Amino acid sequence: MNGACKNIALVCPGGPISRELANDVTALAAAEFGGVANLHFHDQCFLEAGHFAGGDAARSDAFLEAANDPKFDAIWFARGGYGANRLRDDLWGRLNEAARDKTYLGYSDTGVILAHLYKNKLGRAVHGPMPTDLGRENGAAAVRRALEFFATGRADGFESSIDAKTPVVAFNLVVLAHMLETAAMPDLSGHVIMIEDIGEYLYRVDRAMSAITANAGIRKAAGIRLGRITDVPENDRPFGQTDEEIVQYWCARAGIPYLGRADIGHDADNKIVPFGRNGAAV
Amino acid sequence: MNGACKNIALVCPGGPISRELANDVTALAAAEFGGVANLHFHDQCFLEAGHFAGGDAARSDAFLEAANDPKFDAIWFARGGYGANRLRDDLWGRLNEAARDKTYLGYSDTGVILAHLYKNKLGRAVHGPMPTDLGRENGAAAVRRALEFFATGRADGFESSIDAKTPVVAFNLVVLAHMLETAAMPDLSGHVIMIEDIGEYLYRVDRAMSAITANAGIRKAAGIRLGRITDVPENDRPFGQTDEEIVQYWCARAGIPYLGRADIGHDADNKIVPFGRNGAAV
Repeated sequence: MNGACKNIALVCPGGPISRELANDVTALAAAEFGGVANLHFHDQCFLEAGHFAGGDAARSDAFLEAANDPKFDAIWFARGGYGANRLRDDLWGRLNEAARDKTYLGYSDTGVILAHLYKNKLGRAVHGPMPTDLGRENGAAAVRRALEFFATGRADGFESSIDAKTPVVAFNLVVLAHMLETAAMPDLSGHVIMIEDIGEYLYRVDRAMSAITANAGIRKAAGIRLGRITDVPENDRPFGQTDEEIVQYWCARAGIPYLGRADIGHDADNKIVPFGRNGAAV
Repeated sequence: MNGACKNIALVCPGGPISRELANDVTALAAAEFGGVANLHFHDQCFLEAGHFAGGDAARSDAFLEAANDPKFDAIWFARGGYGANRLRDDLWGRLNEAARDKTYLGYSDTGVILAHLYKNKLGRAVHGPMPTDLGRENGAAAVRRALEFFATGRADGFESSIDAKTPVVAFNLVVLAHMLETAAMPDLSGHVIMIEDIGEYLYRVDRAMSAITANAGIRKAAGIRLGRITDVPENDRPFGQTDEEIVQYWCARAGIPYLGRADIGHDADNKIVPFGRNGAAV
Protein backbone atom coordinates (compact mmCIF):
# COMPACT_ATOMS: atom_id res chain seq x y z
CA MET A 1 0.00 0.00 0.00
CA ASN A 2 0.96 3.61 -0.44
CA GLY A 3 1.19 5.67 2.68
CA ALA A 4 -1.22 8.03 4.31
CA CYS A 5 -4.14 9.89 2.74
CA LYS A 6 -4.34 13.39 4.11
CA ASN A 7 -7.18 14.88 2.11
CA ILE A 8 -10.27 12.76 1.72
CA ALA A 9 -13.30 13.52 -0.42
CA LEU A 10 -16.62 11.94 0.53
CA VAL A 11 -19.34 11.11 -2.01
CA CYS A 12 -22.50 8.98 -1.94
CA PRO A 13 -22.92 6.70 -4.98
CA GLY A 14 -26.15 5.24 -3.57
CA GLY A 15 -28.26 6.69 -0.81
CA PRO A 16 -27.87 10.11 0.86
CA ILE A 17 -26.62 10.94 4.34
CA SER A 18 -27.71 13.67 6.73
CA ARG A 19 -25.79 16.86 7.50
CA GLU A 20 -25.75 15.70 11.12
CA LEU A 21 -23.88 12.53 10.28
CA ALA A 22 -21.37 14.49 8.21
CA ASN A 23 -20.88 16.92 11.09
CA ASP A 24 -20.45 14.13 13.64
CA VAL A 25 -17.86 12.29 11.55
CA THR A 26 -16.07 15.53 10.72
CA ALA A 27 -15.90 16.36 14.44
CA LEU A 28 -14.54 12.92 15.30
CA ALA A 29 -11.91 13.17 12.57
CA ALA A 30 -10.90 16.68 13.63
CA ALA A 31 -10.62 15.71 17.30
CA GLU A 32 -8.60 12.55 16.79
CA PHE A 33 -6.97 12.92 13.37
CA GLY A 34 -6.79 16.71 13.00
CA GLY A 35 -4.39 17.71 10.25
CA VAL A 36 -3.66 14.13 9.20
CA ALA A 37 -7.05 13.02 7.82
CA ASN A 38 -9.12 15.96 6.61
CA LEU A 39 -12.65 15.22 5.42
CA HIS A 40 -14.37 17.04 2.57
CA PHE A 41 -18.03 16.03 2.18
CA HIS A 42 -19.24 16.72 -1.35
CA ASP A 43 -22.60 18.50 -1.40
CA GLN A 44 -23.92 15.63 -3.49
CA CYS A 45 -24.03 13.51 -0.31
CA PHE A 46 -27.06 15.48 0.84
CA LEU A 47 -29.08 15.46 -2.38
CA GLU A 48 -32.26 13.45 -2.46
CA ALA A 49 -33.88 11.99 -5.57
CA GLY A 50 -36.20 9.13 -4.68
CA HIS A 51 -34.10 6.32 -3.29
CA PHE A 52 -30.85 8.02 -4.25
CA ALA A 53 -28.49 10.83 -3.22
CA GLY A 54 -29.32 12.70 -6.39
CA GLY A 55 -30.02 11.33 -9.84
CA ASP A 56 -27.66 9.02 -11.71
CA ALA A 57 -26.00 11.98 -13.44
CA ALA A 58 -25.48 13.93 -10.21
CA ARG A 59 -23.97 10.92 -8.44
CA SER A 60 -21.77 10.07 -11.42
CA ASP A 61 -20.58 13.68 -11.76
CA ALA A 62 -19.75 14.02 -8.06
CA PHE A 63 -17.73 10.83 -8.06
CA LEU A 64 -15.91 11.83 -11.24
CA GLU A 65 -15.19 15.34 -9.97
CA ALA A 66 -13.81 14.10 -6.65
CA ALA A 67 -11.84 11.23 -8.17
CA ASN A 68 -10.25 13.44 -10.83
CA ASP A 69 -9.30 16.21 -8.38
CA PRO A 70 -5.56 16.03 -7.60
CA LYS A 71 -5.98 17.76 -4.25
CA PHE A 72 -7.64 14.66 -2.78
CA ASP A 73 -5.64 11.59 -1.80
CA ALA A 74 -8.64 9.37 -1.26
CA ILE A 75 -12.33 8.91 -1.95
CA TRP A 76 -14.33 7.67 1.00
CA PHE A 77 -17.81 6.48 0.20
CA ALA A 78 -19.95 8.05 2.91
CA ARG A 79 -22.64 5.42 2.66
CA GLY A 80 -23.73 2.36 0.73
CA GLY A 81 -27.39 1.97 -0.02
CA TYR A 82 -28.39 0.73 -3.45
CA GLY A 83 -27.34 2.81 -6.44
CA ALA A 84 -23.65 2.42 -7.30
CA ASN A 85 -24.47 0.16 -10.23
CA ARG A 86 -26.53 2.93 -11.82
CA LEU A 87 -23.56 5.25 -12.28
CA ARG A 88 -22.92 6.08 -15.92
CA ASP A 89 -21.26 3.38 -18.03
CA ASP A 90 -18.82 5.89 -19.54
CA LEU A 91 -17.46 6.90 -16.13
CA TRP A 92 -14.51 4.56 -15.99
CA GLY A 93 -12.93 5.80 -19.18
CA ARG A 94 -13.10 9.39 -17.93
CA LEU A 95 -11.00 8.94 -14.79
CA ASN A 96 -7.71 10.86 -15.07
CA GLU A 97 -4.20 10.39 -13.66
CA ALA A 98 -5.22 11.88 -10.31
CA ALA A 99 -7.98 9.28 -10.05
CA ARG A 100 -5.50 6.51 -10.79
CA ASP A 101 -3.39 7.55 -7.82
CA LYS A 102 -6.15 7.49 -5.21
CA THR A 103 -7.36 5.17 -2.50
CA TYR A 104 -11.08 4.30 -2.58
CA LEU A 105 -12.70 3.02 0.61
CA GLY A 106 -16.16 1.59 1.15
CA TYR A 107 -18.16 -1.63 1.16
CA SER A 108 -21.62 -3.10 0.65
CA ASP A 109 -23.32 -1.58 -2.40
CA THR A 110 -20.21 0.49 -3.23
CA GLY A 111 -18.44 -2.81 -3.92
CA VAL A 112 -19.63 -2.35 -7.50
CA ILE A 113 -17.31 0.68 -7.78
CA LEU A 114 -14.44 -1.08 -6.02
CA ALA A 115 -14.87 -3.90 -8.54
CA HIS A 116 -14.75 -1.53 -11.52
CA LEU A 117 -11.65 0.20 -10.14
CA TYR A 118 -9.90 -3.06 -9.33
CA LYS A 119 -10.73 -4.59 -12.68
CA ASN A 120 -9.30 -1.61 -14.51
CA LYS A 121 -6.32 -1.15 -12.17
CA LEU A 122 -7.52 2.34 -11.28
CA GLY A 123 -6.13 3.40 -7.89
CA ARG A 124 -6.39 1.23 -4.79
CA ALA A 125 -9.78 -0.33 -4.06
CA VAL A 126 -10.28 -1.04 -0.37
CA HIS A 127 -13.14 -2.67 1.53
CA GLY A 128 -13.71 -1.02 4.90
CA PRO A 129 -15.97 1.02 7.19
CA MET A 130 -17.89 4.08 6.03
CA PRO A 131 -19.10 7.18 7.90
CA THR A 132 -22.63 5.80 8.03
CA ASP A 133 -21.32 3.06 10.31
CA LEU A 134 -21.17 5.68 13.06
CA GLY A 135 -24.84 4.93 13.67
CA ARG A 136 -24.15 1.26 14.52
CA GLU A 137 -23.55 -0.11 17.98
CA ASN A 138 -19.98 0.81 18.84
CA GLY A 139 -19.83 2.40 15.38
CA ALA A 140 -17.19 4.98 16.32
CA ALA A 141 -14.68 2.12 16.45
CA ALA A 142 -15.40 1.33 12.81
CA VAL A 143 -15.08 4.95 11.74
CA ARG A 144 -11.80 5.28 13.71
CA ARG A 145 -10.46 2.18 11.96
CA ALA A 146 -11.04 3.81 8.58
CA LEU A 147 -9.58 7.14 9.69
CA GLU A 148 -6.54 5.42 11.17
CA PHE A 149 -6.03 3.67 7.87
CA PHE A 150 -6.24 6.95 5.98
CA ALA A 151 -4.01 8.75 8.50
CA THR A 152 -1.26 6.16 8.68
CA GLY A 153 -1.67 3.72 5.79
CA ARG A 154 -0.75 1.03 8.29
CA ALA A 155 -2.13 -2.50 8.30
CA ASP A 156 -3.37 -2.51 11.92
CA GLY A 157 -7.00 -2.62 10.86
CA PHE A 158 -6.58 -5.21 8.11
CA GLU A 159 -8.52 -8.45 8.15
CA SER A 160 -6.20 -10.88 9.90
CA SER A 161 -6.18 -13.69 7.32
CA ILE A 162 -4.61 -11.44 4.68
CA ASP A 163 -1.06 -12.45 3.84
CA ALA A 164 1.51 -11.08 1.45
CA LYS A 165 1.07 -13.87 -1.08
CA THR A 166 -2.60 -14.34 -1.88
CA PRO A 167 -4.66 -11.60 -3.52
CA VAL A 168 -7.96 -10.84 -1.81
CA VAL A 169 -11.23 -9.06 -2.41
CA ALA A 170 -14.28 -8.56 -0.23
CA PHE A 171 -17.86 -8.16 -1.41
CA ASN A 172 -21.41 -8.10 -0.23
CA LEU A 173 -22.72 -11.51 -1.29
CA VAL A 174 -25.92 -10.43 -3.02
CA VAL A 175 -24.17 -7.50 -4.68
CA LEU A 176 -21.57 -9.95 -6.02
CA ALA A 177 -24.30 -12.32 -7.22
CA HIS A 178 -25.76 -9.48 -9.31
CA MET A 179 -22.36 -8.35 -10.61
CA LEU A 180 -21.26 -11.61 -12.22
CA GLU A 181 -20.67 -11.19 -15.96
CA THR A 182 -21.30 -7.44 -15.81
CA ALA A 183 -18.75 -4.85 -16.92
CA ALA A 184 -17.72 -4.37 -13.28
CA MET A 185 -16.57 -7.91 -12.66
CA PRO A 186 -12.82 -8.34 -12.19
CA ASP A 187 -10.87 -11.53 -12.87
CA LEU A 188 -10.70 -13.19 -9.44
CA SER A 189 -8.51 -16.12 -10.45
CA GLY A 190 -6.36 -17.13 -7.50
CA HIS A 191 -8.05 -14.66 -5.17
CA VAL A 192 -9.51 -15.24 -1.75
CA ILE A 193 -13.06 -13.89 -1.97
CA MET A 194 -14.51 -12.68 1.32
CA ILE A 195 -18.28 -12.29 1.44
CA GLU A 196 -20.68 -10.75 3.91
CA ASP A 197 -24.29 -9.60 3.93
CA ILE A 198 -27.08 -8.10 5.97
CA GLY A 199 -30.84 -8.43 6.12
CA GLU A 200 -31.17 -11.39 3.75
CA TYR A 201 -33.27 -14.48 4.41
CA LEU A 202 -31.12 -17.61 4.48
CA TYR A 203 -32.85 -18.87 1.35
CA ARG A 204 -31.59 -15.75 -0.40
CA VAL A 205 -28.09 -16.35 0.94
CA ASP A 206 -28.39 -19.87 -0.46
CA ARG A 207 -29.62 -18.60 -3.82
CA ALA A 208 -26.83 -16.04 -4.07
CA MET A 209 -24.30 -18.74 -3.20
CA SER A 210 -25.75 -20.95 -5.94
CA ALA A 211 -25.25 -18.13 -8.42
CA ILE A 212 -21.71 -17.18 -7.50
CA THR A 213 -20.42 -20.75 -7.18
CA ALA A 214 -21.89 -21.63 -10.59
CA ASN A 215 -19.83 -18.89 -12.19
CA ALA A 216 -16.79 -19.99 -14.17
CA GLY A 217 -14.75 -17.01 -13.02
CA ILE A 218 -15.51 -17.53 -9.34
CA ARG A 219 -14.55 -21.20 -9.68
CA LYS A 220 -10.99 -20.07 -10.45
CA ALA A 221 -10.72 -18.35 -7.06
CA ALA A 222 -8.33 -19.64 -4.40
CA GLY A 223 -11.30 -19.94 -2.09
CA ILE A 224 -14.13 -18.25 -0.26
CA ARG A 225 -14.17 -16.87 3.28
CA LEU A 226 -17.43 -16.10 5.02
CA GLY A 227 -17.80 -12.83 6.89
CA ARG A 228 -20.83 -12.12 8.99
CA ILE A 229 -24.39 -12.40 7.70
CA THR A 230 -26.30 -10.16 10.10
CA ASP A 231 -29.94 -9.24 10.72
CA VAL A 232 -31.23 -12.37 8.99
CA PRO A 233 -35.05 -12.15 9.01
CA GLU A 234 -36.93 -15.10 10.49
CA ASN A 235 -38.70 -17.07 7.80
CA ASP A 236 -42.02 -18.88 8.19
CA ARG A 237 -39.99 -22.11 8.16
CA PRO A 238 -36.44 -22.41 9.55
CA PHE A 239 -34.08 -22.92 6.62
CA GLY A 240 -32.41 -25.99 8.09
CA GLN A 241 -28.79 -24.94 7.57
CA THR A 242 -26.69 -22.19 9.13
CA ASP A 243 -25.09 -19.52 6.97
CA GLU A 244 -21.74 -21.28 7.20
CA GLU A 245 -23.28 -24.65 6.29
CA ILE A 246 -24.86 -23.01 3.24
CA VAL A 247 -21.54 -21.59 2.09
CA GLN A 248 -19.77 -24.90 2.72
CA TYR A 249 -22.49 -26.75 0.80
CA TRP A 250 -22.16 -24.65 -2.34
CA CYS A 251 -18.37 -24.46 -2.17
CA ALA A 252 -18.21 -28.27 -1.95
CA ARG A 253 -20.69 -28.65 -4.79
CA ALA A 254 -18.63 -26.35 -7.02
CA GLY A 255 -15.19 -27.56 -5.95
CA ILE A 256 -14.23 -24.18 -4.50
CA PRO A 257 -12.15 -24.33 -1.28
CA TYR A 258 -13.99 -22.99 1.75
CA LEU A 259 -11.34 -21.29 3.82
CA GLY A 260 -13.22 -20.42 7.01
CA ARG A 261 -14.49 -17.17 8.45
CA ALA A 262 -13.54 -13.58 7.61
CA ASP A 263 -13.74 -10.70 10.06
CA ILE A 264 -15.95 -8.48 7.93
CA GLY A 265 -19.61 -7.53 7.97
CA HIS A 266 -22.13 -4.74 8.44
CA ASP A 267 -20.95 -4.06 11.98
CA ALA A 268 -18.37 -2.20 14.06
CA ASP A 269 -15.82 -5.02 13.73
CA ASN A 270 -15.77 -4.80 9.94
CA LYS A 271 -12.07 -4.99 9.06
CA ILE A 272 -10.17 -3.43 6.20
CA VAL A 273 -9.48 -5.48 3.07
CA PRO A 274 -7.25 -3.82 0.46
CA PHE A 275 -8.09 -5.49 -2.85
CA GLY A 276 -5.28 -7.41 -4.51
CA ARG A 277 -1.92 -8.54 -3.17
CA ASN A 278 -0.34 -6.06 -0.76
CA GLY A 279 -2.98 -3.60 -1.86
CA ALA A 280 -2.11 -3.76 -5.55
CA ALA A 281 -4.04 -5.37 -8.39
CA VAL A 282 -2.57 -8.62 -9.67
CA MET B 1 -48.11 -27.97 -28.69
CA ASN B 2 -48.96 -31.61 -28.36
CA GLY B 3 -52.46 -32.44 -27.30
CA ALA B 4 -53.95 -33.20 -23.95
CA CYS B 5 -52.22 -34.56 -20.86
CA LYS B 6 -54.46 -37.08 -19.17
CA ASN B 7 -52.25 -38.31 -16.35
CA ILE B 8 -50.41 -35.69 -14.39
CA ALA B 9 -47.82 -36.28 -11.69
CA LEU B 10 -47.28 -33.57 -9.09
CA VAL B 11 -43.97 -33.00 -7.30
CA CYS B 12 -42.51 -30.17 -5.20
CA PRO B 13 -38.95 -29.17 -6.16
CA GLY B 14 -38.91 -26.42 -3.51
CA GLY B 15 -41.26 -26.05 -0.58
CA PRO B 16 -43.89 -28.56 0.58
CA ILE B 17 -47.66 -28.36 0.31
CA SER B 18 -50.34 -29.55 2.71
CA ARG B 19 -52.53 -32.65 2.27
CA GLU B 20 -55.50 -30.28 2.43
CA LEU B 21 -54.33 -28.35 -0.62
CA ALA B 22 -53.73 -31.58 -2.53
CA ASN B 23 -57.22 -32.80 -1.62
CA ASP B 24 -58.84 -29.50 -2.62
CA VAL B 25 -57.13 -29.41 -6.01
CA THR B 26 -57.82 -33.10 -6.59
CA ALA B 27 -61.51 -32.49 -5.83
CA LEU B 28 -61.66 -29.53 -8.20
CA ALA B 29 -60.00 -31.53 -10.96
CA ALA B 30 -62.27 -34.52 -10.41
CA ALA B 31 -65.43 -32.40 -10.41
CA GLU B 32 -64.61 -30.37 -13.51
CA PHE B 33 -62.05 -32.44 -15.44
CA GLY B 34 -62.86 -35.97 -14.24
CA GLY B 35 -61.31 -38.59 -16.53
CA VAL B 36 -59.51 -36.04 -18.69
CA ALA B 37 -56.96 -34.59 -16.21
CA ASN B 38 -56.13 -37.03 -13.45
CA LEU B 39 -53.83 -35.77 -10.70
CA HIS B 40 -51.29 -37.95 -8.90
CA PHE B 41 -49.60 -36.15 -6.01
CA HIS B 42 -46.23 -37.71 -5.21
CA ASP B 43 -45.76 -38.33 -1.48
CA GLN B 44 -42.64 -36.19 -1.68
CA CYS B 45 -44.90 -33.11 -1.86
CA PHE B 46 -45.66 -33.53 1.84
CA LEU B 47 -42.15 -34.13 3.15
CA GLU B 48 -40.60 -31.46 5.33
CA ALA B 49 -36.87 -30.87 5.76
CA GLY B 50 -36.19 -27.34 6.96
CA HIS B 51 -37.23 -24.96 4.20
CA PHE B 52 -37.77 -27.75 1.71
CA ALA B 53 -40.20 -30.52 0.75
CA GLY B 54 -37.61 -33.13 1.70
CA GLY B 55 -33.87 -33.00 1.26
CA ASP B 56 -32.15 -32.34 -2.06
CA ALA B 57 -31.90 -36.09 -2.76
CA ALA B 58 -35.57 -36.75 -1.99
CA ARG B 59 -36.74 -33.88 -4.19
CA SER B 60 -34.39 -34.87 -7.00
CA ASP B 61 -35.46 -38.52 -6.81
CA ALA B 62 -39.16 -37.70 -6.84
CA PHE B 63 -38.81 -35.45 -9.87
CA LEU B 64 -36.71 -38.06 -11.69
CA GLU B 65 -39.10 -40.88 -10.83
CA ALA B 66 -42.16 -38.96 -12.01
CA ALA B 67 -40.47 -37.57 -15.12
CA ASN B 68 -39.15 -40.96 -16.21
CA ASP B 69 -42.46 -42.77 -15.65
CA PRO B 70 -44.18 -43.41 -19.00
CA LYS B 71 -47.63 -43.56 -17.43
CA PHE B 72 -47.58 -39.81 -16.82
CA ASP B 73 -48.15 -37.31 -19.62
CA ALA B 74 -47.14 -34.28 -17.62
CA ILE B 75 -45.34 -33.05 -14.52
CA TRP B 76 -47.12 -30.28 -12.69
CA PHE B 77 -45.06 -28.52 -10.06
CA ALA B 78 -47.39 -28.27 -7.08
CA ARG B 79 -45.65 -25.27 -5.63
CA GLY B 80 -42.68 -22.98 -6.08
CA GLY B 81 -40.85 -21.84 -2.99
CA TYR B 82 -37.08 -21.75 -3.10
CA GLY B 83 -35.24 -24.99 -3.78
CA ALA B 84 -35.38 -26.05 -7.45
CA ASN B 85 -31.81 -24.91 -8.02
CA ARG B 86 -30.58 -27.33 -5.34
CA LEU B 87 -31.68 -30.41 -7.30
CA ARG B 88 -28.77 -32.68 -8.17
CA ASP B 89 -26.53 -31.58 -11.03
CA ASP B 90 -26.57 -35.07 -12.58
CA LEU B 91 -30.35 -35.09 -12.89
CA TRP B 92 -30.65 -33.82 -16.42
CA GLY B 93 -28.54 -36.57 -17.94
CA ARG B 94 -30.68 -39.21 -16.25
CA LEU B 95 -34.00 -38.26 -17.83
CA ASN B 96 -35.24 -41.02 -20.16
CA GLU B 97 -37.39 -41.08 -23.32
CA ALA B 98 -40.60 -40.86 -21.28
CA ALA B 99 -39.28 -37.67 -19.66
CA ARG B 100 -38.51 -36.23 -23.10
CA ASP B 101 -42.10 -36.65 -24.15
CA LYS B 102 -43.72 -34.83 -21.24
CA THR B 103 -45.16 -31.41 -20.55
CA TYR B 104 -43.77 -29.59 -17.47
CA LEU B 105 -45.87 -26.82 -15.96
CA GLY B 106 -44.97 -24.34 -13.23
CA TYR B 107 -43.46 -20.91 -12.59
CA SER B 108 -41.60 -18.80 -10.04
CA ASP B 109 -38.78 -20.79 -8.43
CA THR B 110 -39.50 -23.82 -10.64
CA GLY B 111 -38.41 -21.69 -13.60
CA VAL B 112 -34.94 -23.08 -12.94
CA ILE B 113 -36.22 -26.52 -13.97
CA LEU B 114 -38.11 -25.15 -16.96
CA ALA B 115 -34.88 -23.48 -18.03
CA HIS B 116 -32.88 -26.71 -17.75
CA LEU B 117 -35.51 -28.62 -19.72
CA TYR B 118 -35.80 -25.97 -22.40
CA LYS B 119 -32.05 -25.61 -22.75
CA ASN B 120 -31.67 -29.36 -23.24
CA LYS B 121 -34.79 -29.75 -25.42
CA LEU B 122 -36.27 -32.15 -22.87
CA GLY B 123 -40.06 -32.21 -23.21
CA ARG B 124 -42.19 -29.07 -23.25
CA ALA B 125 -41.44 -26.44 -20.62
CA VAL B 126 -44.48 -24.29 -19.82
CA HIS B 127 -44.92 -21.31 -17.49
CA GLY B 128 -48.32 -21.36 -15.82
CA PRO B 129 -50.37 -21.64 -12.61
CA MET B 130 -49.66 -24.21 -9.93
CA PRO B 131 -51.94 -25.91 -7.37
CA THR B 132 -50.66 -23.63 -4.61
CA ASP B 133 -52.31 -20.74 -6.47
CA LEU B 134 -55.63 -22.06 -5.18
CA GLY B 135 -54.92 -20.10 -1.99
CA ARG B 136 -54.84 -16.76 -3.83
CA GLU B 137 -57.77 -14.44 -4.33
CA ASN B 138 -59.82 -15.97 -7.13
CA GLY B 139 -57.17 -18.70 -7.24
CA ALA B 140 -59.53 -21.38 -8.54
CA ALA B 141 -59.52 -19.55 -11.88
CA ALA B 142 -55.76 -20.00 -12.11
CA VAL B 143 -55.93 -23.69 -11.24
CA ARG B 144 -58.74 -24.19 -13.79
CA ARG B 145 -56.62 -22.49 -16.45
CA ALA B 146 -53.86 -25.02 -15.87
CA LEU B 147 -56.24 -27.97 -15.79
CA GLU B 148 -57.95 -26.78 -18.96
CA PHE B 149 -54.57 -26.61 -20.62
CA PHE B 150 -53.75 -30.15 -19.53
CA ALA B 151 -57.20 -31.45 -20.47
CA THR B 152 -57.40 -29.89 -23.92
CA GLY B 153 -53.91 -28.70 -24.93
CA ARG B 154 -55.68 -25.66 -26.33
CA ALA B 155 -54.27 -22.15 -26.39
CA ASP B 156 -57.23 -20.45 -24.67
CA GLY B 157 -55.20 -19.68 -21.56
CA PHE B 158 -52.05 -18.54 -23.36
CA GLU B 159 -50.58 -15.10 -22.78
CA SER B 160 -52.12 -12.97 -25.51
CA SER B 161 -48.96 -11.47 -26.99
CA ILE B 162 -47.65 -14.89 -28.04
CA ASP B 163 -47.59 -15.35 -31.79
CA ALA B 164 -46.54 -18.23 -34.02
CA LYS B 165 -43.29 -16.55 -35.07
CA THR B 166 -41.38 -15.37 -32.02
CA PRO B 167 -40.09 -17.80 -29.38
CA VAL B 168 -40.95 -16.86 -25.82
CA VAL B 169 -39.99 -17.72 -22.26
CA ALA B 170 -41.28 -16.46 -18.92
CA PHE B 171 -39.31 -16.21 -15.71
CA ASN B 172 -39.40 -14.78 -12.25
CA LEU B 173 -37.08 -11.79 -12.48
CA VAL B 174 -34.92 -12.46 -9.44
CA VAL B 175 -34.73 -16.17 -10.23
CA LEU B 176 -33.53 -15.26 -13.72
CA ALA B 177 -30.98 -12.83 -12.30
CA HIS B 178 -29.48 -15.67 -10.24
CA MET B 179 -29.57 -18.14 -13.15
CA LEU B 180 -27.46 -16.19 -15.64
CA GLU B 181 -24.33 -18.11 -16.62
CA THR B 182 -25.39 -21.19 -14.66
CA ALA B 183 -25.85 -24.63 -16.21
CA ALA B 184 -29.61 -24.00 -16.36
CA MET B 185 -29.45 -20.98 -18.63
CA PRO B 186 -30.83 -21.53 -22.15
CA ASP B 187 -29.83 -19.53 -25.21
CA LEU B 188 -32.53 -16.84 -25.43
CA SER B 189 -31.36 -15.26 -28.68
CA GLY B 190 -34.36 -13.91 -30.52
CA HIS B 191 -36.74 -14.73 -27.69
CA VAL B 192 -39.28 -12.52 -26.00
CA ILE B 193 -38.48 -12.76 -22.31
CA MET B 194 -41.42 -12.18 -20.00
CA ILE B 195 -40.60 -11.38 -16.39
CA GLU B 196 -42.62 -11.12 -13.20
CA ASP B 197 -41.96 -11.08 -9.48
CA ILE B 198 -43.47 -10.84 -6.04
CA GLY B 199 -42.45 -9.41 -2.69
CA GLU B 200 -39.33 -7.57 -3.89
CA TYR B 201 -38.43 -4.00 -3.00
CA LEU B 202 -38.20 -1.84 -6.11
CA TYR B 203 -34.48 -1.37 -5.51
CA ARG B 204 -34.14 -5.15 -5.79
CA VAL B 205 -36.18 -5.14 -8.98
CA ASP B 206 -33.80 -2.47 -10.26
CA ARG B 207 -30.74 -4.47 -9.21
CA ALA B 208 -32.06 -7.63 -10.86
CA MET B 209 -32.77 -5.66 -14.04
CA SER B 210 -29.21 -4.31 -13.98
CA ALA B 211 -27.91 -7.88 -13.79
CA ILE B 212 -30.04 -9.40 -16.53
CA THR B 213 -29.67 -6.52 -18.97
CA ALA B 214 -25.87 -6.57 -18.52
CA ASN B 215 -25.77 -10.19 -19.64
CA ALA B 216 -24.51 -10.84 -23.16
CA GLY B 217 -27.02 -13.63 -23.73
CA ILE B 218 -29.99 -11.58 -22.63
CA ARG B 219 -28.88 -8.76 -24.92
CA LYS B 220 -29.51 -11.06 -27.88
CA ALA B 221 -33.18 -11.40 -26.93
CA ALA B 222 -35.91 -9.98 -29.16
CA GLY B 223 -37.09 -7.98 -26.18
CA ILE B 224 -38.47 -7.96 -22.67
CA ARG B 225 -42.08 -7.85 -21.54
CA LEU B 226 -42.99 -6.94 -17.99
CA GLY B 227 -45.54 -9.02 -16.14
CA ARG B 228 -46.83 -7.99 -12.74
CA ILE B 229 -44.55 -7.18 -9.82
CA THR B 230 -46.86 -7.71 -6.85
CA ASP B 231 -46.68 -7.25 -3.07
CA VAL B 232 -43.82 -4.74 -3.34
CA PRO B 233 -42.83 -3.83 0.24
CA GLU B 234 -42.78 -0.14 1.13
CA ASN B 235 -39.25 1.11 1.57
CA ASP B 236 -38.13 3.83 3.99
CA ARG B 237 -37.76 6.07 0.93
CA PRO B 238 -39.93 5.82 -2.19
CA PHE B 239 -37.78 4.50 -5.04
CA GLY B 240 -38.70 7.27 -7.45
CA GLN B 241 -39.53 5.10 -10.45
CA THR B 242 -42.36 2.64 -11.10
CA ASP B 243 -41.61 -0.97 -11.93
CA GLU B 244 -42.26 -0.31 -15.60
CA GLU B 245 -40.02 2.77 -15.60
CA ILE B 246 -37.26 0.64 -14.05
CA VAL B 247 -37.56 -2.00 -16.74
CA GLN B 248 -37.67 0.65 -19.48
CA TYR B 249 -34.59 2.35 -17.99
CA TRP B 250 -32.44 -0.77 -18.03
CA CYS B 251 -33.72 -1.96 -21.40
CA ALA B 252 -32.86 1.42 -22.91
CA ARG B 253 -29.44 1.42 -21.26
CA ALA B 254 -28.67 -2.05 -22.65
CA GLY B 255 -30.26 -1.57 -26.06
CA ILE B 256 -32.85 -4.29 -25.46
CA PRO B 257 -36.32 -3.56 -26.88
CA TYR B 258 -38.96 -3.08 -24.21
CA LEU B 259 -42.09 -4.58 -25.67
CA GLY B 260 -44.74 -3.63 -23.11
CA ARG B 261 -46.64 -5.58 -20.51
CA ALA B 262 -47.19 -9.32 -20.17
CA ASP B 263 -50.21 -10.89 -18.54
CA ILE B 264 -48.29 -13.00 -16.03
CA GLY B 265 -47.57 -12.76 -12.33
CA HIS B 266 -48.10 -14.31 -8.92
CA ASP B 267 -51.88 -13.94 -9.16
CA ALA B 268 -55.03 -15.54 -10.49
CA ASP B 269 -54.63 -13.93 -13.93
CA ASN B 270 -51.24 -15.54 -14.50
CA LYS B 271 -51.43 -16.78 -18.10
CA ILE B 272 -49.81 -19.78 -19.74
CA VAL B 273 -46.54 -19.33 -21.64
CA PRO B 274 -45.27 -22.41 -23.49
CA PHE B 275 -41.52 -21.93 -23.87
CA GLY B 276 -40.23 -21.67 -27.42
CA ARG B 277 -42.08 -21.16 -30.69
CA ASN B 278 -45.45 -22.89 -30.81
CA GLY B 279 -44.44 -24.72 -27.66
CA ALA B 280 -41.26 -26.20 -29.11
CA ALA B 281 -37.65 -25.26 -28.44
CA VAL B 282 -35.95 -23.30 -31.21
